[in-house]
Parts: sequence; structure tokens; C-alpha cells
Amino acid sequence: MEDIYPSRLHPTAEFLPRRDPVVHSQWHEDAPIDLEQTASFERDGFLVLEDLFSEAEVAFLQTEAGKLLSDPDALDQETVITEPGSRELRSIFRIHDQSAIVARLAADERLAGVARFLLGDEVYIHQSRLNYKPGFQGKEFYWHSDFETWHVEDGMPRMRALSMSVLLAENTPNNGPLMLIPGSHRALLTCVGQTPPDHYLTSLKKQEYGVPDEDSLAELAFKYGIVAPTGKAGSVVIFDCNVMHGSNGNITPFHRANAFLVYNAVSNRLGAPFGVDRPRPDFIAARGEITPIEPVSGRLASEVAA
Amino acid sequence: MEDIYPSRLHPTAEFLPRRDPVVHSQWHEDAPIDLEQTASFERDGFLVLEDLFSEAEVAFLQTEAGKLLSDPDALDQETVITEPGSRELRSIFRIHDQSAIVARLAADERLAGVARFLLGDEVYIHQSRLNYKPGFQGKEFYWHSDFETWHVEDGMPRMRALSMSVLLAENTPNNGPLMLIPGSHRALLTCVGQTPPDHYLTSLKKQEYGVPDEDSLAELAFKYGIVAPTGKAGSVVIFDCNVMHGSNGNITPFHRANAFLVYNAVSNRLGAPFGVDRPRPDFIAARGEITPIEPVSGRLASEVAA
Repeated sequence: MEDIYPSRLHPTAEFLPRRDPVVHSQWHEDAPIDLEQTASFERDGFLVLEDLFSEAEVAFLQTEAGKLLSDPDALDQETVITEPGSRELRSIFRIHDQSAIVARLAADERLAGVARFLLGDEVYIHQSRLNYKPGFQGKEFYWHSDFETWHVEDGMPRMRALSMSVLLAENTPNNGPLMLIPGSHRALLTCVGQTPPDHYLTSLKKQEYGVPDEDSLAELAFKYGIVAPTGKAGSVVIFDCNVMHGSNGNITPFHRANAFLVYNAVSNRLGAPFGVDRPRPDFIAARGEITPIEPVSGRLASEVAA
Repeated sequence: MEDIYPSRLHPTAEFLPRRDPVVHSQWHEDAPIDLEQTASFERDGFLVLEDLFSEAEVAFLQTEAGKLLSDPDALDQETVITEPGSRELRSIFRIHDQSAIVARLAADERLAGVARFLLGDEVYIHQSRLNYKPGFQGKEFYWHSDFETWHVEDGMPRMRALSMSVLLAENTPNNGPLMLIPGSHRALLTCVGQTPPDHYLTSLKKQEYGVPDEDSLAELAFKYGIVAPTGKAGSVVIFDCNVMHGSNGNITPFHRANAFLVYNAVSNRLGAPFGVDRPRPDFIAARGEITPIEPVSGRLASEVAA
């Protein structure tokens, strides 16, 4: 397959034009988001849906998250990621396969319906995780485009995927919220150099390859600015697979937590990686048999656990 | 001298009541700040004076800062502090002694006049520094009360000192700005344990003793909240010696820079430290002969350099 987004090949970084739409459907009256929201996602590469889940639904999800985080031994061990230099939980991957409640969340029409509309296709979960960033010692996550990694290391062909972060704790300006560079999704900033084998073992903790260069980041930030959407638990931040994002550390006592779901178009299934010999494991990037999501309507409630 | 604020003595932390005023003068018509600003400083333990210095004055100070930062070899070497694990400049201490322009800034009536009013006494510079927190890799600075350290390690008897941060670059919510817990200045949160000798050699880079405990910090933050004043270069953040503060790291390309001046009342001069045998060096905490400031009016301009 032709690599229309080559990265980590050349000694200098460049901006490659995006050759895929951002919104892959025509907006219509029955679309799950309104015209202004659609235009805003197209322009900025992200969108915040406030209070998408009720307080009762949030409490229900938080209870489930608490159970999962408190009993990591019950989980597939390779999916459990700790903070660098500590045993503190940072993320649990492939969480929709390990929790019926998160599977139900991923299929919820309020999320999956929007993903289907924006991606103009049936969708499946490319990656899912439960993120917990503790207070006081929460570490930063450096700038990156997800697509750059997903393309080079996982073999995602085109820009036809997006992430949804369902906030399970309030994002304040001070507790290390997700920061985005609006507009940065309109070009691929290539990274310099080659990727070592089994890079994923360290990159989930601390990124060292596939890292954008400082000059290009400064160019983007001065051109577009940086925004850090804040929101209560129950809000959802949706962002394009190629928007530049990262987060600062967090010395405040206020933890961050979210359920993180990556939807990919079924037509954009993974092939062989474009930049490494061996693809990353399935728990980071689903490949092979994939299951298109059947959106489910109605509120999240305890009966789904049965 | 009786130690009315004992800290680092006991195995558990406690909140000791403040036994000193926050504002040490009666407000009057000719005061350099208005009644509302005075009440706000008293209540919150900090105050922001926006656009106190003009764009021309800021440019003048930035030029001087650039000169000082670019030629560290010209400075007293013990006053130059680098980032942990790197040679990147983080702070230059005793900067008012090494730069006629910073000395003029410290004496400026807009700063020194306010310090004299709030402290109800003649004032001198207890500590000064030029802070430069580079973009991309700027490290966090954990929560602390300055007074706790100044009292235990430097022998400052009472709470009658304050800091002024003259912003030389914009503070945004995202570039690791100073965060404060408003109201936390009304009690001293004692720290646990004892201080090792020559603690200052590492504490300026990374604090390990004299650190507040997480439970008490959480109690303060939940009770009072956390604020991170933002402001353009030329604004000044004034804060009480005992207000709890810290800052997150900074992965954005936007650096932070400020001239940092600590004013102490001449009646509150340092004695023997209350918690260690040997006081920290003079460049961190002025002792012995001190020079009360004669406030100077008028704008900062290049002739002062002569």
C-alpha cells in the first residue's frame, strides 16, 4: 500500500498536507450534532460535548472505574500501565473487552452515533483505556499526533479515526488537562528518525521516538494557540486522530480520570505498519477480526452489568 | 528567641494559627493601593496588579534579563541555579546585587511603596532572583509556604514579609503559572521530620524536606480552591510569605520569566535559624548588614544603567 503519510524517515521534519476529510459525512437535519458543532470540529479538530452523561450515569461509571483500578490483578496484566518509576496505575488498556459497562459505554449512541457520523462509516474500537492521573504526582504527557504513531507503528492507512475522552473527574485548568492545538490536524507534522523495535514497551510511559520537534511545535502553537478544554465529569472531549495534543503534570490534589475510546472507520482497518517491522500488540491497536459497533440507545444503568 | 511557629519537629503535621497580621498598616487615603485591593490581599494572601509596568519598561527589563541569562559566567557562580539533570538556567539569585537595573526595579515606588505599606515598616530585599522557566521541558515546583522554610532554615522570626513576581513573559493557564491556595496564609501548616545539613544545595532544584503532607494539602485545596493568576508581562503578583503555592511543569513552547523580589520588614530581620544549626548562605537569605530601601519614583529607563 502506498504510504501517503511517510514519517520518521527523514532527518528534518515537515508538514505534509492532509489528504483526508476531517468530517467524512455531509451534515443533515438528523445528524447527531448540529451544524455549528460539525463546523467547529472540522475547523478546530476537536469538540466538547458538555454534560453528555447525567450525574447518575457518571456515578455509575466512576464506581465501575474504581472497581477496575482497585483490583489490577483481575485484569490482563499486559494492559495495565503504571507511572514511570512507580507502581501507581496510569492506564488500563482494552478496557471495553474487560468491562461490560465500558463496552456498553463504547456502544452508546451518544458516542458511537457521533463517531459514525463524523467518520462517515461504521466504526469499531481501535483502542480503549481507562486513564487515571493521580493528584500531586501526575506526570506530563508530551505533544504528539496520535495518527503519526498509529500510522507508523500500527499501520492505520488514513486519517479516519477519532478519540473520545469521557471525563470521570472534572478537568480544571490546573490539574493537567488535555491541551490541544486547534487547527493542527490539517497537516501531518512528520517526526525525525527511525523507530526502535518494541518501542511500545516504553512509549506508553514516556515517549522518546515519534516525538515532534520543538521548532515545529513552536510554529504551530504561535500560529494557532493552545486550548485546554475544561469541563465537569460527564462531559466528552472528541478529537481528531491528527490534532496535536499533550498534557502538563499535575501537582494539585485533584486527580484526572477518563474513559478513553478510539473509534476507527471499518474501511480504515489496520494493515502492516508503515514504519516498523512488527506491529504493536492487539491491546494497543486492534487488528484482525474487528466487530463493528451496533449503537445502543438509552441511559447507562446497572442492568447492563448483568 | 521563642519559636512561635515550630515546624519539622513532630511526626504529624498541624495547622498553627497565624499570630501576625497580614496587612501591617491601617489603610488610608494616600495608601499606594486602594481599600478593596488591601482587603483582597488580607483575605486571599495575594494580589495581582495588572499592567503595573509599561510595554517600554517591560522591554527594557526583558533586555536586561536576556543579557544576564546569556552570560552566566559573568555572575557569582553560587547564585546560578540550573534545571535538575541539565545545565539549563532556572534562576539567578541575589540579582539585585548583580544588576543595577534590577536594583532600580526593587527600589521602584510602585513595588517598594506597596511593600512598605503592607508590611507597615521600612523594607529591605530578603531574597531576589531572576526566574526563567523554559518552554517544553519546564519542571514543576511543588507546594510550599515560603515562610516555613525562611523560619526554619533562615531564622525569619515573624510573618512580615512578602514576594513580588514581576512578570517578564505572559502567564497563561497552560505554561506552568504560579498557583496559590487563597486563604491558606491564615495558618502555618507545619512539616514533618528534620532538615538535613546543607539542604539548600538540593532544595533549590527539588524540594525534599519542608514539604507539606498530601492530606493537609488536599484539605486546603478542597476548602479554598486553587487559583492561578494569569497576566501579561508587566503585571505583578504580590503574595504573602505564608500562602501555599507551587507550579506545574510546562510542555508548551511558551516560557515563563519573572523578576522575583522578596521584601522583609526591617523589624523582622533574620536571627539564628529555628530548625537547623547553620543558616543558608546570604545569596538566598540576606542577613547581617541590611540596607533599607529608599523608594524611587519615575519610569524605568536606560539611564539607570549608568
